Amino acid sequence: MPIDTAALHRFLTELLGTGGVIDDPAAFARYTTDWAGDKGGDPWMIARPATPEQVADIVAFCHRHQIPMVAQGGHSGLVGGAQPDPERGELMISLERLNRIRHLDPVNFSMSVDSGCILQTVKEAAEEADCYFPLALGAQGSCQIGGNVSTNAGGLNVLRYGMMRQLVLGLEVVLPDGRLWNGMHALHKDNRGYDLKQLFIGAEGTLGIVTGAVLKLAPRPQTSRTALIAVPDIAAALALYGQARRSCCDLLSAFELIPRVCMELAFEAAPDLPDPFDDAHPVYVLMEVSASGPADLDTMIEHLFETGAEQEHVLDGVLASSETQAAQLWQIRESMLEGQQMRGEHLRTDVSLPISGLTAFFEDASHAVTQRSPDTQIIAYGHIGDGNLHFNLLPPARLDLEAKKALLHELEDALFDIVDAHHGSISAEHGIGRVKQAAFLADLSDTEYTLLKGLKQLFDPQGLMAAGRILPR
Amino acid sequence: MPIDTAALHRFLTELLGTGGVIDDPAAFARYTTDWAGDKGGDPWMIARPATPEQVADIVAFCHRHQIPMVAQGGHSGLVGGAQPDPERGELMISLERLNRIRHLDPVNFSMSVDSGCILQTVKEAAEEADCYFPLALGAQGSCQIGGNVSTNAGGLNVLRYGMMRQLVLGLEVVLPDGRLWNGMHALHKDNRGYDLKQLFIGAEGTLGIVTGAVLKLAPRPQTSRTALIAVPDIAAALALYGQARRSCCDLLSAFELIPRVCMELAFEAAPDLPDPFDDAHPVYVLMEVSASGPADLDTMIEHLFETGAEQEHVLDGVLASSETQAAQLWQIRESMLEGQQMRGEHLRTDVSLPISGLTAFFEDASHAVTQRSPDTQIIAYGHIGDGNLHFNLLPPARLDLEAKKALLHELEDALFDIVDAHHGSISAEHGIGRVKQAAFLADLSDTEYTLLKGLKQLFDPQGLMAAGRILPR
Repeated sequence: MPIDTAALHRFLTELLGTGGVIDDPAAFARYTTDWAGDKGGDPWMIARPATPEQVADIVAFCHRHQIPMVAQGGHSGLVGGAQPDPERGELMISLERLNRIRHLDPVNFSMSVDSGCILQTVKEAAEEADCYFPLALGAQGSCQIGGNVSTNAGGLNVLRYGMMRQLVLGLEVVLPDGRLWNGMHALHKDNRGYDLKQLFIGAEGTLGIVTGAVLKLAPRPQTSRTALIAVPDIAAALALYGQARRSCCDLLSAFELIPRVCMELAFEAAPDLPDPFDDAHPVYVLMEVSASGPADLDTMIEHLFETGAEQEHVLDGVLASSETQAAQLWQIRESMLEGQQMRGEHLRTDVSLPISGLTAFFEDASHAVTQRSPDTQIIAYGHIGDGNLHFNLLPPARLDLEAKKALLHELEDALFDIVDAHHGSISAEHGIGRVKQAAFLADLSDTEYTLLKGLKQLFDPQGLMAAGRILPR
Repeated sequence: MPIDTAALHRFLTELLGTGGVIDDPAAFARYTTDWAGDKGGDPWMIARPATPEQVADIVAFCHRHQIPMVAQGGHSGLVGGAQPDPERGELMISLERLNRIRHLDPVNFSMSVDSGCILQTVKEAAEEADCYFPLALGAQGSCQIGGNVSTNAGGLNVLRYGMMRQLVLGLEVVLPDGRLWNGMHALHKDNRGYDLKQLFIGAEGTLGIVTGAVLKLAPRPQTSRTALIAVPDIAAALALYGQARRSCCDLLSAFELIPRVCMELAFEAAPDLPDPFDDAHPVYVLMEVSASGPADLDTMIEHLFETGAEQEHVLDGVLASSETQAAQLWQIRESMLEGQQMRGEHLRTDVSLPISGLTAFFEDASHAVTQRSPDTQIIAYGHIGDGNLHFNLLPPARLDLEAKKALLHELEDALFDIVDAHHGSISAEHGIGRVKQAAFLADLSDTEYTLLKGLKQLFDPQGLMAAGRILPR
């Protein structure tokens, strides 16, 4: 049945007013081009509902008229999930106007919000109430809570506070047939039947559109310490991690691996950034501890330095003595990403392994890359406290764009095989979307495929909602 | 179709050997009578598989021959979920022989186990590796990991470490058609598609039988402090909780509410137990903090005492000065349960509320009980850091058993209405099983009911596995 886009337009304009519908393709770019410059297809039009009920009405209309649709949050995803389908055509439902903080309850350590709230806004509101919403991502100034839920977002603080799944107490979701499910419970414990909200977390919008969430808050940290530690190799970084978990008493909130090559990328992007050490070291760890009360963080970190030095895991270390110095250490982490971006075409991966398997994976993966392309540069950093590595590759500068792409494609396949061999995941935190679908499906057992298909069929038998993401249409 | 139990017996004996099948009804009692003395029906027989593959073979046989079945772990559940169906008849599959610790990986902070492992055994194995498995329940000496997963067990340490859901990295499950799903990933982050394991956690065995799990470990605490604090009322206890989360820097591992009446029950059960205070106080809080490294816990607790006293939340407090004294404080918590049991027939509930709503709920619920039965005694204690209250009732001693049961039934209905009015849950941690099914269904929206039914139908279209638990047959 051909889509009657004129009728859709009439319906949306009546429901949302003219400001609620974007129909001028010249205005689409902001919604169709992602931060990396990748362009999805154009939607037929973009609906901008401002209430959960409006989202429900739109979805019900699409359900009745078999109109494919896709929801979009802050559009900072990395796997093309929120990009419109370039072939089939879709109505895009942008949640940017659904941005009320509904209720902040510091006594319950919870906060109820619309799904279009920007993460940074939520974090700031929590802090004003002497609370803390721990999710921390590079994109936090633009990404939205609904997207964080739908992608089960990770980021820097997972090792202490968990991924988004662990930060959600309740959800409100518009189901693919337009029914509005109210699961906005603000309960820290609730064992009534199957936990439906778990299905929507990480489902990338394929089972429903999240319109609201009750978030779990923590006490606001009052003090924090940032340290950069130089270690001889990755094995030492991992040993130091085990020690850091113990010495820092679960107050460790970040533990990032930064090999020397990444440090140099940071200096390329920010030439004024000082090297915190006199000598270059093979591998660094950037770590942070924080506390909401009278914890002696310096003693913990000294204990870690001493134990690490005794066991020859630590070559050198610097403990930031001021907030400015701490910010400078964190700037290494950020500038390194800019430096990588400045080098042009490269392969970004997002793999996870058992922490105990990281060293062997690193060796096997490096060997596989070097064997195939000796002058491809390995930029492997990540949240190693979670076993999560961004094992990225910079192809040789001498190749043209097509040759680079072909090489990176081949190397990605080889890497993913090694991830499998080491019982890892090809998507630790970014999800599947469309970009990783082929690799995802290649690994899925028949049992898993039938269960996933069954779930999609149960929620969206017409295959209208975010179709083609995670599973093929 | 009538069940050919003779054929089932032949199949099981051939698969498992004679030790693997219990067919003598005289030997059933251990599996059919729960800790509270409640008796389920008799199963046709009890299969005792020793490997996941044997579980799969049994389930496949049942699937082919339409034989209803129910799995049983340590049989310490509180809602009748693992009791055989008294009407329809079932094959019971006991997982007690499936009890290997498969792999302990301290570097990855993970542990892979058979589902029949006893929680206490798992905790001890973790400690030997300088790690910690935080789940802590009264029944930990007998309950099994598979049951902990299937009921999403809670307990004492939830406020710091989460419920079982947050402690599971991977699962292995026999699906109702006998397929063995291997989701035994030992990854701290994994965002590949829908997270299937979430469906089985808390599903009470209705969607599959858990045969293995990868558990998430924490660093082993090296020091801990236990304190008992007297406060004027529940509102003060809640204010103290917010302060304790902050002062104790997320190192707070338990925060239990104990009203005076519960303290007196403890003294009834253990007359030698000393009252830690010279005076009786209206309400007490029993709290514990622990740390794996050099944290100054005394300073944190002193900070809490001082802040609490300034704000008039604290009347008196005792900080245990030795492990013996700490154990004595915890004995109050345990003896109080014995004291309650000694009083005979009583109503046990397991409700949760937003923490900010506990005071109002407490008032409304007490009022409702007193209005209906002025001499019913309210025994309300619980994990208030999770908003979880066991609001239990002791009926007047003068009533006979039938009258007591009728009264408690009426009071339970009234309590559950008040829970609803305060946006709470009638099952914070115990689940639904059969015991709470009617109350659960009464509150379910049509949308939720169709989704839950759809999930059950997707996994178990013949309705053979743990049928009648959570949802009606």
